[in-house]
Amino acid sequence: MASEKLGIGLIGAGRIGKVHGETIARRVPGARLVTICDVNAAAAQALADELGAEVSPSVEALLQHPEVQAVVICSSTDTHAPFIKLAAAAGKDIFCEKPIATDLAVIDAALQAVEQAGVKLMIGFNRRFDSNYARVKQAIVSGEIGTPQLLHIISRDPGPPPVAYIKVSGGIFLDMTIHDFDMARFLFGDVTEVYAVGAVMVDPGIGEAGDIDTAVITLKFANGAIGTIDNSRKAVYGYDQRVEAFGSAGAAASENNYSDAVTISTGDSVRRGLPLNFFMERYLAAYQTELVAFVSALRDGTPMPVTGADGRAPVVIAKAALKSLRENRPVKLSEI
Amino acid sequence: MASEKLGIGLIGAGRIGKVHGETIARRVPGARLVTICDVNAAAAQALADELGAEVSPSVEALLQHPEVQAVVICSSTDTHAPFIKLAAAAGKDIFCEKPIATDLAVIDAALQAVEQAGVKLMIGFNRRFDSNYARVKQAIVSGEIGTPQLLHIISRDPGPPPVAYIKVSGGIFLDMTIHDFDMARFLFGDVTEVYAVGAVMVDPGIGEAGDIDTAVITLKFANGAIGTIDNSRKAVYGYDQRVEAFGSAGAAASENNYSDAVTISTGDSVRRGLPLNFFMERYLAAYQTELVAFVSALRDGTPMPVTGADGRAPVVIAKAALKSLRENRPVKLSEI
Amino acid sequence: MASEKLGIGLIGAGRIGKVHGETIARRVPGARLVTICDVNAAAAQALADELGAEVSPSVEALLQHPEVQAVVICSSTDTHAPFIKLAAAAGKDIFCEKPIATDLAVIDAALQAVEQAGVKLMIGFNRRFDSNYARVKQAIVSGEIGTPQLLHIISRDPGPPPVAYIKVSGGIFLDMTIHDFDMARFLFGDVTEVYAVGAVMVDPGIGEAGDIDTAVITLKFANGAIGTIDNSRKAVYGYDQRVEAFGSAGAAASENNYSDAVTISTGDSVRRGLPLNFFMERYLAAYQTELVAFVSALRDGTPMPVTGADGRAPVVIAKAALKSLRENRPVKLSEI
Amino acid sequence: MASEKLGIGLIGAGRIGKVHGETIARRVPGARLVTICDVNAAAAQALADELGAEVSPSVEALLQHPEVQAVVICSSTDTHAPFIKLAAAAGKDIFCEKPIATDLAVIDAALQAVEQAGVKLMIGFNRRFDSNYARVKQAIVSGEIGTPQLLHIISRDPGPPPVAYIKVSGGIFLDMTIHDFDMARFLFGDVTEVYAVGAVMVDPGIGEAGDIDTAVITLKFANGAIGTIDNSRKAVYGYDQRVEAFGSAGAAASENNYSDAVTISTGDSVRRGLPLNFFMERYLAAYQTELVAFVSALRDGTPMPVTGADGRAPVVIAKAALKSLRENRPVKLSEI
Repeated sequence: MASEKLGIGLIGAGRIGKVHGETIARRVPGARLVTICDVNAAAAQALADELGAEVSPSVEALLQHPEVQAVVICSSTDTHAPFIKLAAAAGKDIFCEKPIATDLAVIDAALQAVEQAGVKLMIGFNRRFDSNYARVKQAIVSGEIGTPQLLHIISRDPGPPPVAYIKVSGGIFLDMTIHDFDMARFLFGDVTEVYAVGAVMVDPGIGEAGDIDTAVITLKFANGAIGTIDNSRKAVYGYDQRVEAFGSAGAAASENNYSDAVTISTGDSVRRGLPLNFFMERYLAAYQTELVAFVSALRDGTPMPVTGADGRAPVVIAKAALKSLRENRPVKLSEI
Repeated sequence: MASEKLGIGLIGAGRIGKVHGETIARRVPGARLVTICDVNAAAAQALADELGAEVSPSVEALLQHPEVQAVVICSSTDTHAPFIKLAAAAGKDIFCEKPIATDLAVIDAALQAVEQAGVKLMIGFNRRFDSNYARVKQAIVSGEIGTPQLLHIISRDPGPPPVAYIKVSGGIFLDMTIHDFDMARFLFGDVTEVYAVGAVMVDPGIGEAGDIDTAVITLKFANGAIGTIDNSRKAVYGYDQRVEAFGSAGAAASENNYSDAVTISTGDSVRRGLPLNFFMERYLAAYQTELVAFVSALRDGTPMPVTGADGRAPVVIAKAALKSLRENRPVKLSEI
Repeated sequence: MASEKLGIGLIGAGRIGKVHGETIARRVPGARLVTICDVNAAAAQALADELGAEVSPSVEALLQHPEVQAVVICSSTDTHAPFIKLAAAAGKDIFCEKPIATDLAVIDAALQAVEQAGVKLMIGFNRRFDSNYARVKQAIVSGEIGTPQLLHIISRDPGPPPVAYIKVSGGIFLDMTIHDFDMARFLFGDVTEVYAVGAVMVDPGIGEAGDIDTAVITLKFANGAIGTIDNSRKAVYGYDQRVEAFGSAGAAASENNYSDAVTISTGDSVRRGLPLNFFMERYLAAYQTELVAFVSALRDGTPMPVTGADGRAPVVIAKAALKSLRENRPVKLSEI
Repeated sequence: MASEKLGIGLIGAGRIGKVHGETIARRVPGARLVTICDVNAAAAQALADELGAEVSPSVEALLQHPEVQAVVICSSTDTHAPFIKLAAAAGKDIFCEKPIATDLAVIDAALQAVEQAGVKLMIGFNRRFDSNYARVKQAIVSGEIGTPQLLHIISRDPGPPPVAYIKVSGGIFLDMTIHDFDMARFLFGDVTEVYAVGAVMVDPGIGEAGDIDTAVITLKFANGAIGTIDNSRKAVYGYDQRVEAFGSAGAAASENNYSDAVTISTGDSVRRGLPLNFFMERYLAAYQTELVAFVSALRDGTPMPVTGADGRAPVVIAKAALKSLRENRPVKLSEI
């Protein structure tokens, strides 16, 4: 019944699991956090205690819980695809954090399992639910800026992750730029070709780990438009997340978010504080909005706002970008 | 024990009661919503169901609940002082929405009851906890702007309340400007004299009800600084809440808050959307922060961040402003 | 003939005289700088050499120059009224820097002389020709902001003049605020009553000289609107010149001007440089625009954009403000 | 003698010639406009009359004028190199509008003539003298933003030139982007490789003429940094000229310039007017500043601020960009 709350099982009680768990328990009308499972049983128990949920000793047990209708997968990336398959086999609808996997065959197998099971799958590209990007999207969809022509995405982290993490991250394109590839698709549609330039400017250790920390990617879109993505692992002034969409009738540009709207004028400068420095803070509202959207779509029977195909596509772009970087030439997505 | 959560009883389950109730139940570490009481028993029950709290049939019953250590008073203004007295007599610490009362004798009696009972009292001037005003305050306290000299407060509502409400509101100074009088005190300290000018420009019905809808108040502060407050019951572009503090070493100015940070450029203009339109939305975070501050102060045994005296002072200023408006002359607070 | 350039005699070759002289010689289509006169003959000669003009040994001689059709009076304030009278008697049209005089009887005699002679007189309230204030005015005139309700003028100097100057300046209201009184009239029309509050916060020497350096003035307008002016002799961050006009359909607010539009983001702040620091720089374009307007009006036979009455009115407001400050009460302009 | 004004001959009395002529005649201390020459003798005469200069019947005659010490070449692009050679042969110092030529052999021959004659040559890349770009440059040079890492140049015209002009323009990279290539070099130094993507989105006629109207160029700099240039022939909201330089210690970003600093808030939006729409208006001050710099460098014997090599380099980048566009691959400048 639509009046009954959707029972959700949470897989993963780490950083993002805590955010999603609290959101489901407290801020998603129509949802109910039933049970939590984590390889770290203590973490699962602590979160369950805080949120008034049960714990499940395994994903299998969680999936068999009679009140679990859907799962939210927040475990480590390598478990996403296996858990998607398990959940699909159990007939549960699925919200899965990005990326599904870094291997296309693995992704395809997971998506096939979802399709065969006839369950719903949404991928957690949270930025689509940020009020800034949503407003830019609206400006495009509504025709406010006319035919899309140029897109510029600025996406810079406040600081690089540890080199140890870099080594297992799959590389900047799969780890960081993948959000921007999704944003590009969200705003301007399918990408057909990419050209990537990269450099190690932030930390030589990142270079020694075989990765880059600074990148510029040129995108050709199926609609003829052209885009650029500008990445750095370290913007000293904070988390720099902006986009500008330019079209035949105008442009829509989003600025960073700040903790306050205060300007200080002194004998030295007219200044304000730094942008929000942490993705959890910057996108806190977006994390909530995406789960509300997931639950609403399930309850209303409407299409998933971010599909499995949406989860697959940025991985293809990332692979093309990596190939482009290595070969210093534009690479068509059809080559991947 | 500091490790045990503070049990709170909520008095009033109306608009602001719902906000405070949800905040206590879900977003104040160290607090627990025990029970709710409202003259509208159904409203109390609905909120209690949603938040997992009990209901109390009366304020007296609520105060006798063994787990209630503090109360949050969100009932109608005329009940604030009586409930403060009851809660004080029951030895409970108190958070009370502003204003305590509109009659100074009533306020004084309530404050005396609090003092005699030795309980703590905090008044809900939520704007002090808004990140913009807090940043301006910090700029003053830290000396960033030097010696305070000039203060300008802009406080305009998106639209007037119904005339029926205006009639029982106590007038614009007690109903609306009281927040600005508190802000003035929060930022620049005690006020010694006021001069008020007012007009009916928004709705003749407000004038017929004996009130004004547009006002400018000049403030003289004890520290020698000068301030102005600029009020309107109707800013068509939304809720306009700004302040500028000017001093010998600089100025701190806060802008309005918006739902997004997107600029749209077209052939007509470079524009953004309107400021947040509703006080609940504009000050949502501040409502949470003030309750966190209340609970922290109680648990840590530190002074209340907004005292009973802070609750009384703006009422005195409001009365002086009204006298000034009627007599068209500056009025010293000592005349009240 | 309209095709012939208007011959102008410049009286006064000091700071503002140089600006006006160069403007007339080089940037006013339809005008020609014929001759210059200054009590400092060397200054007149130097400017004449630079601008390719003649010098006149006296104002009388200048007025008799056959090619002089209009005069621009930039000499010291005490000579404004006498030179207006002389020019009027000689049948020359007149542009005179503000103020005409600080004594109303002197002003009235000068204006009477102008009227009797049937010559044209424009007063140099240059800020009316600034693009920011002109845009705000347009927003009012066009109805963009609806019925005017509230006006807030911020006018702060980057630093006080020498105390020696303060002593002969006529006081802050006649020396500095007079521009703001004119701005108030320009934007919202006639003022009927003022209330002034003042303090010495910048320099005790200013107080010892019998003046104030910080002031807030409340204005009641004939149209029912209310205004405030906020003055300081010293804003450490530069020349602070802003206005906000609020009405039933919206608001128009002008920001300060800067030498560049560059924002610097570092680990400390997101900042820009300071506003333009000097009135000559801030209002350079306005000085040119006002003389173009003067010459155009003369050549086209259209009304003077700033009349003698416009020159008189702010002096009346200044006197009322001074009386209000001294008596700490609102003063009607009809009392002056 | 340093005290004598530098005599300048102006070659070309068209649109930009008028601007430079007026600037020299009126706003460059230390310079004097001696004579003007144009293939359109009437245009030369009209400008000479307005500015109080002589006319010369030919460039040869102009170069033989005994008072001409330097020339300012504003004639059509195809005459730049020949006139540079003539002026060099006559021993005159030279300011020449960009580009020197579109053929590298022609440029090299002209630069060789300059070198052999030992005269000075400055190329008119005016944007370097704009206060916004100068401030960004200062932020780089001073170390404010640390080691340069990423550069993003936005350069969009308010509307395309006529297709007839497009056909003889040499293409967008030589006609429009050349300014941005120079800006890239000005801010981040030498470019080593480019990758260009382009499209016809504004006007099919431009495509039929063999050109593009929308382009994105990726630049690799010799210092390891990466840049992007984002061009459109038509931004409906006006002339869009911005840059963002990002480095290890921060970022410097310039905004567009506007005719006023007024914000209008209504029930629909919070908006301002459009950016300055015309390059003459946008860069008016820069045109003056560059000529002041030229004359100062000549009089002080300091190096030319924009050299012949600076004039050649962007042409090389433009040719590489064109090759990249045609071959859809990154092209090293060493290939040109």
